[in-house]
Amino acid sequence: MSRVLATYRIETPIDPRRAAESIAGEQSCGTFVRVPGETDELRALFGARVERITELEAVDAPSLPGARPAADVYRRAEVAISFPLENMGPSLTTLMATVAGNLFELSQVSGLKLVDLEVPAEFAAAYPGPAFGVEGTRRLTGVRGRPVIGTIVKPSVGLTPDATARLVGALADAGLDFVKDDELMANPPHSPLAERVKAVMRAVNAHADRTGKKVMVAFNISDEIDEMARHHDTVLAAGGTCVMASLNSVGLPALAWLRRRAALPIHGHRNGWGMLSRHPQLGVAFKAWSVFWRLAGVDHLHTNGLRNKFFEEDESVVASAKALLTPMHGTVVMPVLSSGQWAGQAPDTYRRLGTTDLMYLCGGGLLAHPGGPAAGIASLRQGWEAALAGRPLEDYAREHPELRQAMEMYA
Amino acid sequence: MSRVLATYRIETPIDPRRAAESIAGEQSCGTFVRVPGETDELRALFGARVERITELEAVDAPSLPGARPAADVYRRAEVAISFPLENMGPSLTTLMATVAGNLFELSQVSGLKLVDLEVPAEFAAAYPGPAFGVEGTRRLTGVRGRPVIGTIVKPSVGLTPDATARLVGALADAGLDFVKDDELMANPPHSPLAERVKAVMRAVNAHADRTGKKVMVAFNISDEIDEMARHHDTVLAAGGTCVMASLNSVGLPALAWLRRRAALPIHGHRNGWGMLSRHPQLGVAFKAWSVFWRLAGVDHLHTNGLRNKFFEEDESVVASAKALLTPMHGTVVMPVLSSGQWAGQAPDTYRRLGTTDLMYLCGGGLLAHPGGPAAGIASLRQGWEAALAGRPLEDYAREHPELRQAMEMYA
Repeated sequence: MSRVLATYRIETPIDPRRAAESIAGEQSCGTFVRVPGETDELRALFGARVERITELEAVDAPSLPGARPAADVYRRAEVAISFPLENMGPSLTTLMATVAGNLFELSQVSGLKLVDLEVPAEFAAAYPGPAFGVEGTRRLTGVRGRPVIGTIVKPSVGLTPDATARLVGALADAGLDFVKDDELMANPPHSPLAERVKAVMRAVNAHADRTGKKVMVAFNISDEIDEMARHHDTVLAAGGTCVMASLNSVGLPALAWLRRRAALPIHGHRNGWGMLSRHPQLGVAFKAWSVFWRLAGVDHLHTNGLRNKFFEEDESVVASAKALLTPMHGTVVMPVLSSGQWAGQAPDTYRRLGTTDLMYLCGGGLLAHPGGPAAGIASLRQGWEAALAGRPLEDYAREHPELRQAMEMYA
Repeated sequence: MSRVLATYRIETPIDPRRAAESIAGEQSCGTFVRVPGETDELRALFGARVERITELEAVDAPSLPGARPAADVYRRAEVAISFPLENMGPSLTTLMATVAGNLFELSQVSGLKLVDLEVPAEFAAAYPGPAFGVEGTRRLTGVRGRPVIGTIVKPSVGLTPDATARLVGALADAGLDFVKDDELMANPPHSPLAERVKAVMRAVNAHADRTGKKVMVAFNISDEIDEMARHHDTVLAAGGTCVMASLNSVGLPALAWLRRRAALPIHGHRNGWGMLSRHPQLGVAFKAWSVFWRLAGVDHLHTNGLRNKFFEEDESVVASAKALLTPMHGTVVMPVLSSGQWAGQAPDTYRRLGTTDLMYLCGGGLLAHPGGPAAGIASLRQGWEAALAGRPLEDYAREHPELRQAMEMYA
């Protein structure tokens, strides 16, 4: 029988095997005392199974409160638990309740983080996955051989549709590939989405008519169900080529529903992920979290960037981006590197990921360039040219004043 | 201008005021360097505002990794930050991205938890809130003057529709008010929801025809959007009186959408909440988290129970239940106390909440009663009778053998 495999990092005051068995019981057919009907046969058919336990270090204080009994040492282990697909059917909502539901509250653990998740082919077949991914995005943007370079409309909040359109028009003229709304900007009174789409796409289409290059704009359509559909259709009708959703805000069914009726790539914003993952012993690591959204059908997914302004270390960013670029049931998702990015991280990003199949987004790192946004974009292209040519930035900057200015400003 | 007020508990290596200003800037019109267009006027109109800072204790080690700079002390504070409603409009998805988005990743904090959230009346007016709440649930169940007593179908996974129906039928005969599916049981191959509803409602309706009492069954309809609608209609058509959704699995838009087209109370399951809240310095506390779901329209919401089998302390459970019972823009939600519950917690539950406007769910604490489920239900009613009469359980148990047996089994 096909099974889902969930890998956890746990910490526990008891034997890690017993803790793992508790998780397996709680999340399949068990309860806190054995009840009539919970037969051995039923356990054999529907029980979750502990597949592997790798004991790790021990610590002398619990990472999370409420573990019982109190102990002198708390043992950490990586445990893999499998669940029969029969228990849930190919359902993302039930999968979520099973592998990331009540178990975080178990008193048998003082730490529990879902670090990896694998679903069988029958599960993946029930969901469409990304419709565009890397290839579709390259086709729509016309960008080949380098990352899709983009920015976020800033200020995050407060621009009128016309002001946004002027900014996007200027960025298009400067050669940008991609622009996205901030996750804070969806459909507020001062910039209704329909008006913003109309104004921005007028500028984008005019630029495309002149140059043949259509800037991809990810309009933030995160909203109620019917409104998301309407927003998507508004973007499509205006000639737009991308929609964005804040994944944790909209939830899995809304995203999957949008994907099934969408004709545009879905740019997945991960805001809120920090709450799920900043603590090393609690929550859901990016790799596991992304599995849900990949199945639901995102095309692009934010991973943070190297030397970002947030808490996250480069190792983690690299692991996230690599996870998305690793085929899952035949599909990959385009990683979106952003936060505190400028030309300076291009060489290390290329060296560590070994690909240009990514989006490279800069806010202040482009818009606040001393030579203006056009010079900011030039500096980013130059940074990636240097990375691809294997030349040190300092060296390349000698011949490229925009890159040199960027290094003076941001380095 | 109307504002949303979010209260956080933060921990930071820098001055808490500066950290609070960073949060306010990041989550309104700021970026990491000031960009053209971010004028003082725009800041005044759209900027988030730090309304209050109450400094708390300091600690010598950071609770979460990645805070910068390293410091000798990490200062904790409660900070209230307000956001113009103009920034987001009355949108739950944008509210979520604003008050619980990227800010968890900020390097300026080593701890950040959203502990309270208040939205202005214009925001609440855009959402329907609960359609049934306490009053509607009492009307549908016919239960007055005591809690709605219920159970969860156990084993959690594996029963066929007919086996589930036999169990529910027996529980109805024994006098139970409410039964719910486990959150792990939605629409799996071995118990398709449509078949389960048909079988279970046949038993429930037959019992109602005989006795005039219709047991409320919360069928777990968590699923994709169109399927949730279909499941709801299946339950309604079969004479059912409740549907259940795993809130973190289905997401806000799906829940609000369901609410707008539903004719039945929505039983909100909070599984996954532990991942958002088990760490004291990270995530979203129940009270704040519940605001989103109350606006979206849940009628019942799980709060855990006293002396539960999970990590949570009684103080926290009581605070959660009280929060739901406190009117928010005129509506209350029925708290659902469950996990390790039996008759034993009735007196303390009543003493601490001062009401019977709650659901009291027992799994093993009812089904595993040595006298069988009927005796289990009798013991629960007796426990609540004792609580309402202000009599010690031990005393009341002398006259009530089922309660006495329960105390021998579970105490």
